[in-house]
Order: sequence, then C-alpha cells, then structure tokens
Amino acid sequence: MMAVPSKQAKRGAYTPSTELVPEILAGRILAIARMISRAEGSYAEASVALAEIYRHTGKAHIVGITGVPGSGKSTLVSSLIKSFASEGYKVGVIAVDPSSPFSGGAILGDRVRMSDAAEACHAFVRSMATRGHLGGLTRSTLQAVDILDAAGYSPIIIETVGVGQDEVEVVRAAHTIVVLSAPGLGDDIQAIKAGILEIADIHVVSKCDKPEASATVSTLQAMMALGTASTRTSWYPSVLAVSSVSGACIRDLKENIGRHWLHLKQSGELAERQHNMCKTRILATAKQLFEHKFNEDAEVLHKHIQAVMSRDMDPTLAAHLLLGWEDKA
Amino acid sequence: MMAVPSKQAKRGAYTPSTELVPEILAGRILAIARMISRAEGSYAEASVALAEIYRHTGKAHIVGITGVPGSGKSTLVSSLIKSFASEGYKVGVIAVDPSSPFSGGAILGDRVRMSDAAEACHAFVRSMATRGHLGGLTRSTLQAVDILDAAGYSPIIIETVGVGQDEVEVVRAAHTIVVLSAPGLGDDIQAIKAGILEIADIHVVSKCDKPEASATVSTLQAMMALGTASTRTSWYPSVLAVSSVSGACIRDLKENIGRHWLHLKQSGELAERQHNMCKTRILATAKQLFEHKFNEDAEVLHKHIQAVMSRDMDPTLAAHLLLGWEDKA
Repeated sequence: MMAVPSKQAKRGAYTPSTELVPEILAGRILAIARMISRAEGSYAEASVALAEIYRHTGKAHIVGITGVPGSGKSTLVSSLIKSFASEGYKVGVIAVDPSSPFSGGAILGDRVRMSDAAEACHAFVRSMATRGHLGGLTRSTLQAVDILDAAGYSPIIIETVGVGQDEVEVVRAAHTIVVLSAPGLGDDIQAIKAGILEIADIHVVSKCDKPEASATVSTLQAMMALGTASTRTSWYPSVLAVSSVSGACIRDLKENIGRHWLHLKQSGELAERQHNMCKTRILATAKQLFEHKFNEDAEVLHKHIQAVMSRDMDPTLAAHLLLGWEDKA
Repeated sequence: MMAVPSKQAKRGAYTPSTELVPEILAGRILAIARMISRAEGSYAEASVALAEIYRHTGKAHIVGITGVPGSGKSTLVSSLIKSFASEGYKVGVIAVDPSSPFSGGAILGDRVRMSDAAEACHAFVRSMATRGHLGGLTRSTLQAVDILDAAGYSPIIIETVGVGQDEVEVVRAAHTIVVLSAPGLGDDIQAIKAGILEIADIHVVSKCDKPEASATVSTLQAMMALGTASTRTSWYPSVLAVSSVSGACIRDLKENIGRHWLHLKQSGELAERQHNMCKTRILATAKQLFEHKFNEDAEVLHKHIQAVMSRDMDPTLAAHLLLGWEDKA
C-alpha cells in the first residue's frame, strides 16, 4: 500500500520525517503508518521528528493487555476496540507479535480478525515485528505509542505476550495493566507468568463459559489477597471473568479500565506511575543505544572480544572500555 | 556452614577476595562458595579477584541445560551428575532458580534432591537467586562458572528455565546447549519456548515412558529437518528420549554431550562458538554496568526522568546524556 521511495519519482521521492509531523498531529493515517515504520526500522533520519512528536504526547490513556498465547488476547482486544469505538473513542492498538527466527513469525489468523474490527471502527491497529531486534522492541513500540498519542488516539492498547523480560518491560510502560488468564492452563504456565501477575491492575479470566473458569478466578483472588499487603497503591486489582462473546462482560472490563484511569488521576498516583514509566523507558532506550553502537563499531567490538577470548582482558574491563568509561576500570 | 565475617573475630574477620584466589585455584570448596557469594552480591572489592580468576579459565566444558518448569530438569541434572562423577569427572552445577517477587521463590524440593546427588558425588552445586537483580543474572552466573572453571571443574552445567531473554542469554554462554521438552505439554508452551528451540545442540524429551513422548520426538525431529538448512554449523542436533529412571538413557545423553564437545574442537567451530560466548558476555556485562550506575546516581537519573516527564527532553536524548554520549544527541 505504501509507496517505496524509489517509485515515487513524481512526488519528489522520500518525504523527510520532519515533514510528516504536522500531518501526524492532524491525524493522517498514512503519515502515522509511515512514521511507525521509520521508528521500527530505526531510521536515524527520523530521530529529530520523533523527538518533536514526543513533545506532543502525554494525553492518551495507555492500556497494556498481556497474556500467554491461547488465552484469547486478540479476541478480547477486538471486542474492546468495538466497545470503545461505539462510545466515540479513537482507539489505537500496537500489537507485539510473538515471532521466532525459527517458527517464522506471527499467527496471521488473530491479526486478520483484529483488523476487521479495526476497519469497521476507524481504529488504528499496528503489529510490531519482534524479529531480529529484541533489544529495540521496547523503544520502537513506545515510539509507535507516542505517534498515536500525538495524533490524538486514546485509549492506546499495547497487546503483548506476557512472558519474558522484554515483554514485562513493554507492559510496564502502560498506565493500566490488564493480565489475561485462560482457565485450565496448568501450573507450568502460571509459573512462567509469575513475573507479570503481580503488576496487574485488572485480572481477566477469559473463556468464562468453561467450567474451570471459576477455579481460576478463585486462585487469582487468593493471590491478590496474599499480595496486596506489600503494594503501596490504594487500588485493589479486580478479577473479572469475561467471555468475548458476551457484550456485558466487555462493558464491565471497559468500565474497570476507565475506573482505574480515574483512580490514578484522583489519587495522585498518576505522577508516580508516569515517573516509573519514564524510568523504564529511558533505561530501555539506553540499553538499545549501546547495543546499536556496538553492532556498528564491529571492528572495535571484535578487538575487545579477541582480548577477552585470549584472557588478556576480563569481560568487565572490556565492557567498561566499550562504554567509554575507561577511568572506572 | 559458612562462617559469617562478624563471627570470625579470631581469624581477623573478612578475608579479602584476592586472598581467596590461590585457594580457589587449589579447589578449596569454602573459598569457591565465598567467592560465588561475592560475585552474586556484586561486591566491588571482588572485582580484582574475579579479573584474576578469569585469567585461569577456558578449560572447562560448559553445558547449558534448559527447559520449562515441570519438564524434569533437576531430576535429569541429578542423574547426569552421578553419571559424570562415576567416570571421575569433577562436575560443577550452577542452577538459576525461577523466582518471582510474588510467588516468593524457588521450589525447594528439586534443589534438595539435587544436593543429595551432589553430596554423594563430590560435585559442586550452587543455586543463584534471580530475585531483585534480573539485569545482573547473566554476569553473576558466568562469574560463578569462571570460579568453578578456574578451580578445575568440568563439565560445568548451567541449569535454567528456558523462557525469557535473560535465560536465553545465559544459556548462549554454554558450549553445548541441551533443551529439555516434556511430552504432552501443549502448543502454548512450545510457542513460549520457540526462542530457545533453535539454539539447541541436543534435544531431550523427558518422561519417555509416557505414551505422548514419541509424538513430541517426531515434532522436534520435523522442526530440526525444517531448520537445519539455515544454520551454518555441521552439527546435526540429535533428539533423545530419556527417562531419568533409566541409566541407559542418561549414558546416551552423556555420550552425546561428549560427542558435541569433541565435534566443536575437531571441526574448528569451537573458536566461533567462543567468540559468540564472549560477545554475549561483554554486552550483558555492559548492560548491567550502566543499570548499576543509574541506580547509584539516583539524583542524576531523577533529574532526567523529570525532564522527560515534563516533555522538556525526549527519552532518547536522556539516554544519550546518561550514557555520557552527549555529543551524539
């Protein structure tokens, strides 16, 4: 759909990213899509524009929705899009796909289903590829959120698979975190998810028409009762049982998401939350910056690897030198 | 068992880390255990000693064993310890525990079972706590491996839960990577593990007495057939079905681990492997160094977070400034 620069001779080829900014602020879909691609591709040229876009952010309610494969995330997100859109909200969705260099990528079915819902509701839905640039996933995903925020979208939903440190990092950059559990998934999966369960603001048990659903709800409620004493927030995470087929359940979830947003603003916890979101983001960006630098300075990196391999240097000294912090070594 | 410094008045309290080095090289258990604790606790004082220890490494065969909770890792590792020890090998094990701030830590049963095996065989087994210092896990785990390597242990087994980027990072620092799959675990788990399946040198299907085991073996073999074309190594990953109860299966696995080590040395692929191991390690160390620096310079970090929150600065500029790379911004 999007023209490749070389085929755009008539229009004077490549549009500089900074020229896309006013179009993004005016909500033009094509400019938004292009800028997200440039953020995803780490176009150096786009950095000035992205810094400019960042200045126009901070209005959107960012909602992270996470759950293991098979928990019904995409179906839930599709229903939420429709429900928010029916009340006039301009919904944005950034979906972080599970993709492995081995399995060859995302399961298309879910994405297609979500796009149908999006098209009917004028929502903006975009999948981010995780392939090949794990370190940059948080940065590019949050830049995509920035672009939608500046373009006036709210809520903006970040949909991720809730496993792995990167995933937790992305979802921590949301104001409201929804963790989806499917009934009947075993203890193995629960253990894997353990890192993410305690950061949920809202728990959702999907497929609540299944008989095992009530047991899952009870387990989560028991976990909440155990964990709440140690948290500093005055918000008590709710546990909702939903069926994506039922509109009433989705309305309930949507209301809970809205209530959490209101709670953050009224309790004064929003500032603390935003502080943590910024911290996560700056650290993730810094990590990716030096990973990028090292991959660019292949010769310098190679020299240090050789020295470490031959035991002339230990890895800590090599890391110090590569960071440019030699004096500390 | 280990005396706490404050209770050691007679011996002149704390032994400096550098004084532990000759004892470690002589294989003294107490010195090894102490130095691992100092690496794990990021004792600044230990860094000179760890750099010295690093110079004495490079002899051990490092074996990574990974698999989701419930796949039978600890049982397998216990059997392997006995099998290697019976042939006179001095086996070291560093186990990276699954631990969440929420669930409150490791499942003790498995660890205890492994310690029994270890004690009977004079193997050295150590669990690393993952709690609270996720970023430093790779660094401290590999420093523990260094300490065992310098003390003459080989093979050294790193046991991890095979999910998450950190886990993959740790296991990539091994010469031989063994991925354990349990029959009957669903597609959900397979998808989660996808990131790690393709880096296996040896696939093991545990609980091969279960009827579903042969299907899991076939699936893995089919995956191998699909994936091998793109890999550059001449080693074809084998798929073994084992039952931890049967000694024959464990011997088979042990022989495969030995054959892979021989293959690396004879094919010349060892140098390439070690290059990648060093690269992974340097990058992980650098990441942790700056995460540590940021947490120490809390005031500087806070100032930047405030600027990003108020939109006076974008996250990329803040990251550049915090890295000390201002000129690039």
